[in-house]
This record gives sequence, C-alpha cells and structure tokens, in this order.
Amino acid sequence: MIGTVARAAAVLRSAEDILILTHRRPDGDTVGSANALCLALRKLGKKAFLAPNSEITRRYVRLLAPYAPYEGFAPRFVVTVDCADRTMIPADMAQYAQHIDLVIDHHRSNEGFGAENLVMGQRASCAEIVCDVIEEMGVALDSSIAEGIYIGASTDTGCFKFSNTTANTHRVAAKCLDAGVDGGEINRALFETKSRARYEIEGMLFSSMRFYRDGKIAVALITREARQKTGADWDDLDAIAGVPRQIEGVEVGLTLTELENGDTKVSVRTTKEVDASAICALVGGGGHLRAAGATLHCDSAEAIRRMIEATERVYAGETA
Amino acid sequence: MIGTVARAAAVLRSAEDILILTHRRPDGDTVGSANALCLALRKLGKKAFLAPNSEITRRYVRLLAPYAPYEGFAPRFVVTVDCADRTMIPADMAQYAQHIDLVIDHHRSNEGFGAENLVMGQRASCAEIVCDVIEEMGVALDSSIAEGIYIGASTDTGCFKFSNTTANTHRVAAKCLDAGVDGGEINRALFETKSRARYEIEGMLFSSMRFYRDGKIAVALITREARQKTGADWDDLDAIAGVPRQIEGVEVGLTLTELENGDTKVSVRTTKEVDASAICALVGGGGHLRAAGATLHCDSAEAIRRMIEATERVYAGETA
Repeated sequence: MIGTVARAAAVLRSAEDILILTHRRPDGDTVGSANALCLALRKLGKKAFLAPNSEITRRYVRLLAPYAPYEGFAPRFVVTVDCADRTMIPADMAQYAQHIDLVIDHHRSNEGFGAENLVMGQRASCAEIVCDVIEEMGVALDSSIAEGIYIGASTDTGCFKFSNTTANTHRVAAKCLDAGVDGGEINRALFETKSRARYEIEGMLFSSMRFYRDGKIAVALITREARQKTGADWDDLDAIAGVPRQIEGVEVGLTLTELENGDTKVSVRTTKEVDASAICALVGGGGHLRAAGATLHCDSAEAIRRMIEATERVYAGETA
Repeated sequence: MIGTVARAAAVLRSAEDILILTHRRPDGDTVGSANALCLALRKLGKKAFLAPNSEITRRYVRLLAPYAPYEGFAPRFVVTVDCADRTMIPADMAQYAQHIDLVIDHHRSNEGFGAENLVMGQRASCAEIVCDVIEEMGVALDSSIAEGIYIGASTDTGCFKFSNTTANTHRVAAKCLDAGVDGGEINRALFETKSRARYEIEGMLFSSMRFYRDGKIAVALITREARQKTGADWDDLDAIAGVPRQIEGVEVGLTLTELENGDTKVSVRTTKEVDASAICALVGGGGHLRAAGATLHCDSAEAIRRMIEATERVYAGETA
C-alpha cells in the first residue's frame, strides 16, 4: 500500500479546478470511480470534471460524458483513477501524464506515478478506495455517487462472483444499496443483458471450441469474419474470455481474437490449478494469477500453436 | 414478519434431538440453510440431523448427505428451512408435516404452519435469517457454518445480482468471507461451471427462440428430445429460465419444458415492466413479481399459445 486514505482526502479537499482521468479501454471501475469522485467533489462546491475518453463504449458513456469540462477549462489539479501506470493514460491526455497530482488505484503493480499516491493493492476495485476517500472527505453517499461506486465494485468482481471479491467489497455494496442504488437494474443492464450479436458470437464460440490435454485446455477463436458477420463490437465481446473456462473440467481457457492488423489478441483465464500470468509471460504478455493476456504478432493459427505450447510448458512446471 | 429471531434462537437452544427438513426440489438456499443450522446446533453439543431428501441433486448432495440421521433416530424437535408451506415438505417426510416445531422461512406467503415460526419476508434468502438465529444462539460463524449461509444467500440472489439482493445480503456475505469462506471457488462451481449438456441445451434454446410483440416477448422451448439428446438433467437446466429475458429488449421470457407425462412446465421471467405472477395466475400458476411458473396440462404447442395469450392479456392490463 502506498499513501493513506486520510492524506488523499486532505489533498483533494484543498484542491481546486480538478480534472479526473480514466484509463485506456475504459471499464466500469475506472468510469464508475471517476463519476463518483467527480460528483462528491462537486458536492464540496468544487469545480470538477471528467476528461473525455475517446474509447468510451455506449455502456458507460452516460457516466462520463455529462461531466466533460467546458471549452478552455484549465485544470489546476489532475487525478487518475484505476490507472496502473502512465501508459494507461489515453493518448489525447498525454499532456498531463508527467504531471499527475494524485493517483488513486488498486493495481498492485502501480509504483505511484503521481505527486501524491493512494494505491491499495488489496482492494478488488478502485471504486472501493474512492468510497473510502469520499467518506473521509466528509461527503455522504447519495444514490448518484453510490451508483458509480457500485458499478466499479460490481464490474471488477464479476458482480461479486470472482475470487478477488472481499468482505470489504460486500460492505461497500451494502452501503451503496443503503444509499438507494438499484443494484438489480444496474446488474441486469451490465451482466444479464446480452445483445443478439453477443448471443450469436457465443454460439459460434462454443461450436468452434477445441479441447486439449483431456479437456483441461479449451481454445476458442473469434475470427474477423465472425465479428463482421454478427456486427459485434467490443462491448459485445466484453468478458467473453471467461466463457471457455466455464465448461466443466476446463482449467485453462484460451480465447483468441483476430485483430484488424493481422495480430491475434489472447485472453487467458484459469482455475486455481494454473497460473495465467505465467502462461502469458512466456509469450510476452502479462496479468494476474487467473486472468492474463497478450497480443501475438502472428495469425490465429500460429497463435493457437504458441499458446498451447506455452500452456503445456507451464503445466510442466516451467516459468518465463 | 412472524416471530422474532430471539424467540427462534431461544426455542432452538432448549430443543434436543433435532431434525431439519429441506423442501421439495431442494435448492441452494434450503440446503445451505439446513447445513449451517445443523452444524451450529452441533457446536452447541446437540444431536442435530438433516432429513434425507430424495430429490437432492449432485450439486448439493455433499451439504446434506453426511448429516443424515442414523437408523432409528427419533426426533423430538422438527425444523423446516425455506419451506413456504406444508406441501413443500418432501412426500417421504409427510409424517412430520402436521407437527413442525419451528418454521424458519423468507417467503412472504408463508402463513406460519409450525408451533413456532420465524418468517421474514424482507430477506432475500432463508440463509440470512439462519445467520441471525445462529449468531443469536451465541455460536460464532466458522468457515463450515458460513459456507452453507453463503451458498444460500448467493444462490437465491443469482450471486448478488438480482433485484431481491439487499444491503443485508451483502453484509451477511461479508461475514461469511471474513469467516474464511472461499466465495470465488463456490461461485465458480455454482455459477461459472457449465456442463457440456448445459452448453448444448443453451445453444438449442437460442437457435429455437421465437419473439413476439416486437421482441418484447421471447419464447424458448426445451423439448423432451433435446433433453434426451444432451442428457441434461435438472441440475443442467437450473436457472435456464433466465436466459430468454437476458436478450436485449426482452421484457417477458417464457421458457417451456416438455415433461415426461405430456404436460408442459412454464417458467416466466420478466423485467420491471411486467408482473410475472399475473401472467401465471391466468393459467393457474403463481409466483413472484419477476419470476413465476405454472404447469399446463397440454402439449408444448398449445402451452405456447396459451402463454402468449395470457401475456398479451397482462400487457392489456387484465388480471386474473
């Protein structure tokens, strides 16, 4: 852990003209955290805005867009939420990358690239840390603030399902529901609603799935053709990497997506028997114990071959 | 609410030779509640057993079977958990149906059919009430007791996703994780693991789905043939009724299952726009606001016709 909640709250209380940055390929945690922090700072009477993020998807745009700064706003204090390092700052915000006043994050790998830093690696979501900071600033959670926190906490834990969920995650969720958040409706939109494109992609994924090592390794391929045919965008593909591992007996789920430039993106999801980050480290990627990824500069057939080989090497006890 | 936690705890503390009954077609809540209560009573030095349930599925058998009473055990105190009424008591336990000493339940419709009753309709799961009772009895949650509670709370709320989840559900879950429950592994087994039969059935379900009323009503049919072909059992079909409603724009999901005797079982799942119990009431069934069901004594083609008609009537503002 770097920094303290009390220090981050004190720094924010004395800040003015605040700009909050979300990370590249924004997810529910970065957007929810940013939204909640922005609303809380405004409740303290401060000018606070959310930096536009060109990669925002339709799912989360409503949490970001209404709080964009007016033309010519000159921030005097810049905060990042859920950004593990400077490279995660969107390219069009690069002007701020070397001058971050406060970093709030939960990635263990975060070395603290701001003037002030609050990094709590034991938290499942950045939103839980933001919740602490908001309370420490003396702002009561209302349903609007709590909504962002709830979205951050639920999306980063697969709706409280994944092994990273802690007692603290549940306690924060309880506070959000007490504040009036309609968890059922939020979850329905985020976790229970599948576009037809998503359904079709999942159908294709399953019918094309191949198994290795007596069903312990499952490989799913999302071709460029399948994406074009179904019209699936990145929102539709969100969390699809978890699908192969869901099948009974599978310990390593490999999901490969053919990218436009000919590269192949690989997402690895494992059960407790296998270290996903070790597999990805062997092909130049990285990540967490049970969820890791890599981008391979080759076509999908070659990528499948390399990934199976890397997985077998990890089963054999090898590390990068 | 009928009865108090304090009263139920006091009654249990003075009871001896306790038999705990689960309900027909046992789910995670009845089995988890029963398991936790049994272990807690044993911690108080009491003889406590779980009545065998012939309908138990492989998923939950480990929570029930090891605590079956020895041959000739004569219970002096009988408790039901999660049983809404006497008809939910398994047929081979009918001898106890008129002599239940304590009812612990969360179904609002429960009129209290025991000598003592603790019915808390505001709770998402019976397990949450059992948690209160166990604490009130002065038994500390250990990881074994907490596992049953966690399973009950998570399965009855779709892993904290559904709208019935309350702040209390999350607080109970937090206590369970604090007690050492491995929520990630439990959820992976209960929510993330799909048998191949389940995958195949889902694939068939989607490809055969039909839409009515501009995509607001989705109808899925599970034929006898599909069940035979995939070998899917009731565990495999668990919660499959939620699938049609997941599709974007669907407000009413109707899942019909052809039964061996020629009848058709219907499960109705709705969004907040439509009352599922009102639809089922029109065809002789019942249930909750967003989840209801009925068994129709006709083939599936006729059942589909009747269900569409009932749904259209509810849309038109009609009630039974």
